[in-house]
Amino acid sequence: MHKGQLMYEGKAKKLFETNDPNELVVEYKNDLTAFNGQKKAEQQGKGALNNHISSLLFERLSEADIPNHWLKQLSEMEQLVKHTDIIPIEVVIRNVAAGSIAKRLGLEEGLALAFPIIEFYYKDDALGDPLINDDHINLLNLASHDELDEMRELASKVNDVLLELFRACELKLVDFKLEFGKDPSGKLILSDEVSPDTCRLWDVHTNKKLDKDVFRQDLGSVEDSYQEILNRLRGAVAHG
Amino acid sequence: MHKGQLMYEGKAKKLFETNDPNELVVEYKNDLTAFNGQKKAEQQGKGALNNHISSLLFERLSEADIPNHWLKQLSEMEQLVKHTDIIPIEVVIRNVAAGSIAKRLGLEEGLALAFPIIEFYYKDDALGDPLINDDHINLLNLASHDELDEMRELASKVNDVLLELFRACELKLVDFKLEFGKDPSGKLILSDEVSPDTCRLWDVHTNKKLDKDVFRQDLGSVEDSYQEILNRLRGAVAHG
Repeated sequence: MHKGQLMYEGKAKKLFETNDPNELVVEYKNDLTAFNGQKKAEQQGKGALNNHISSLLFERLSEADIPNHWLKQLSEMEQLVKHTDIIPIEVVIRNVAAGSIAKRLGLEEGLALAFPIIEFYYKDDALGDPLINDDHINLLNLASHDELDEMRELASKVNDVLLELFRACELKLVDFKLEFGKDPSGKLILSDEVSPDTCRLWDVHTNKKLDKDVFRQDLGSVEDSYQEILNRLRGAVAHG
Repeated sequence: MHKGQLMYEGKAKKLFETNDPNELVVEYKNDLTAFNGQKKAEQQGKGALNNHISSLLFERLSEADIPNHWLKQLSEMEQLVKHTDIIPIEVVIRNVAAGSIAKRLGLEEGLALAFPIIEFYYKDDALGDPLINDDHINLLNLASHDELDEMRELASKVNDVLLELFRACELKLVDFKLEFGKDPSGKLILSDEVSPDTCRLWDVHTNKKLDKDVFRQDLGSVEDSYQEILNRLRGAVAHG
């Protein structure tokens, strides 16, 4: 495997070509951004922590037969993934009210939702990643009706797997964001990352926030919080 | 029929009880509001024009077998309707991009949409009437899955009827908002009003706006615009 040209640089990751057109190297960055890029910082150790956490979670999702892009961790900051064409939809799954749903529906933060809520957002920074419905997705040709059904079903399975794993870590999985892509054969698979940058995770006893809200809301050390999540995950996996 | 106590006062209409618990008097107001009540004005003649237009349109919808609350026009400013429990969802049907969808999806105003888009908004002034999806509606217990299907089907039928009628008036039905309610037997029926306050209507040749955007965007005389719509509708009905 040869790490080739930079193909794409996002807010939290860089993607590099390899000598295999079906595989890419993901390099995790130490950059933190929030509020559609309006708040920015660099945090030593953050990239490596997210790489470790996301690799561990994707490994668990692979064991649970969730089709996904993850192949292996390569180094502290890098992992190897399948090349996917990303569908520009952010799929958000919510178990507890927090963030935009609390504001949108006037719900108190921390309210346990009666069932997991799935939302689709249009992945478009210039538009501020707006909430969209199935008609909008159809109009913009972002995904077919069947693909949306498949994304809902996969998101729900991912939620079941992660809820169980985080419960064993005494962490509350409040909500998280997934992205899907199509592999070279056209199959829909889970892509992107699953990390404290893309999940809200609270200590189950104290509701202490251990995710990117620590950065968004200036609640303490991002590195310590993410490290705490990794430690608990490693403990759960070792004892699981 | 005796016009009794004021039951509810909204931004554009007052509802009065009658001696029949199943019937209400709607009194149209001359008040104009926009941007969630931030812009306000009074316009002589507006209430009567909307009462005439909404009555004419509901009569047409009744002929097309769309179940609805309208019974008859009583006077310049009043109509008699069936008492309904309003479902707090604003159903928006769009044929052409304008207003919030243009902003949300980055579409040019005036773009003909490939198919009619249906959106649900949570009717809640304090929250700014946010866009919601089926999961949100389910979570908030606003309507059942079957009721949503029925609202989508009825909204689509209303669109077909109105598109044909406005086409005969040389008016482009850009988008419109519907509200549904349940009659005393629990049946879902179309409620509220259908008027230039709740529809975007453009001249088919010049794209001149003849609806509430005239007020929102200070484009001229609201009374003249609504009168023009009423004149064209009366012409189309007389010749139809």
